[in-house]
Amino acid sequence: MGIHTQKRNPAQPLKNDRVLVIEDNPDHWVFIQKAMQSSFMEATPVWASTSAEALEYLNDCLTIGIRTPLLIFLDLYLPDKETGWQLLQQIRSLPAPIGYLPIVLLSASNQVEDITRSYDSGVTSYVVKPIDFKDWLESFRAFKEYWWEVAALPNFR
Amino acid sequence: MGIHTQKRNPAQPLKNDRVLVIEDNPDHWVFIQKAMQSSFMEATPVWASTSAEALEYLNDCLTIGIRTPLLIFLDLYLPDKETGWQLLQQIRSLPAPIGYLPIVLLSASNQVEDITRSYDSGVTSYVVKPIDFKDWLESFRAFKEYWWEVAALPNFR
Repeated sequence: MGIHTQKRNPAQPLKNDRVLVIEDNPDHWVFIQKAMQSSFMEATPVWASTSAEALEYLNDCLTIGIRTPLLIFLDLYLPDKETGWQLLQQIRSLPAPIGYLPIVLLSASNQVEDITRSYDSGVTSYVVKPIDFKDWLESFRAFKEYWWEVAALPNFR
Repeated sequence: MGIHTQKRNPAQPLKNDRVLVIEDNPDHWVFIQKAMQSSFMEATPVWASTSAEALEYLNDCLTIGIRTPLLIFLDLYLPDKETGWQLLQQIRSLPAPIGYLPIVLLSASNQVEDITRSYDSGVTSYVVKPIDFKDWLESFRAFKEYWWEVAALPNFR
């Protein structure tokens, strides 16, 4: 699979700000896309379904001027958590501004050791994936308010 | 000045979770304290008014078991921004879990170079200080929702 952007309603204006969603589970990508369409319309989600796709996209941002995302959502189990942590460290070692983009890790695990290791590996914040769709909506509303309305993002806003 | 905890209403139950507020401007400390009393009652703010006080407090957390804060608010101009960046890097180099606590930087500056350098120095998110008290309340409500209700914090929750 290549990099897929959200299918948009042609009546909606193009949203130039992007977030990169690194998620190997297509059902969760659909949830995230729907949650963003409802609660976080300020940005267009771009999907990478593997580590390799994500790194290719981020390297293209550095080299051929593809629009750099303002925020990254990273699934920890990609499909296993070692792959997620490895990708996290690879992104952190990329040149500025990619290397210090905020990375919000989404994970099914609420284990203390997973949370600790993720912060130790350079994640910006660790979020346990909600179970109900209503809670996905709430989470994405909070992401939008925090990152789009309160925080100043690196280099772009 | 030593480390000062918020004066609490004795009718309120003790809130065990702490946030460390590193802020040299007493007026801004009062604003932050009031905003937390209104919008972020889940945690008790602890004030450090200099880099030395902040480092002493964080080292005491590591060595003599003072309760580790879950989040740090750091004023960039402490009183100058070089001091703020230096302290940020000093905190990031402390042992776990102190070294990877989320650090929300509060700054009067909205200059791109200050935002960029702050992320490059390891800040978790950069927030331009609001001017109106109403906007401080909104910001602290967003901090509470994001860090207390959505994110899982390192090692403590």
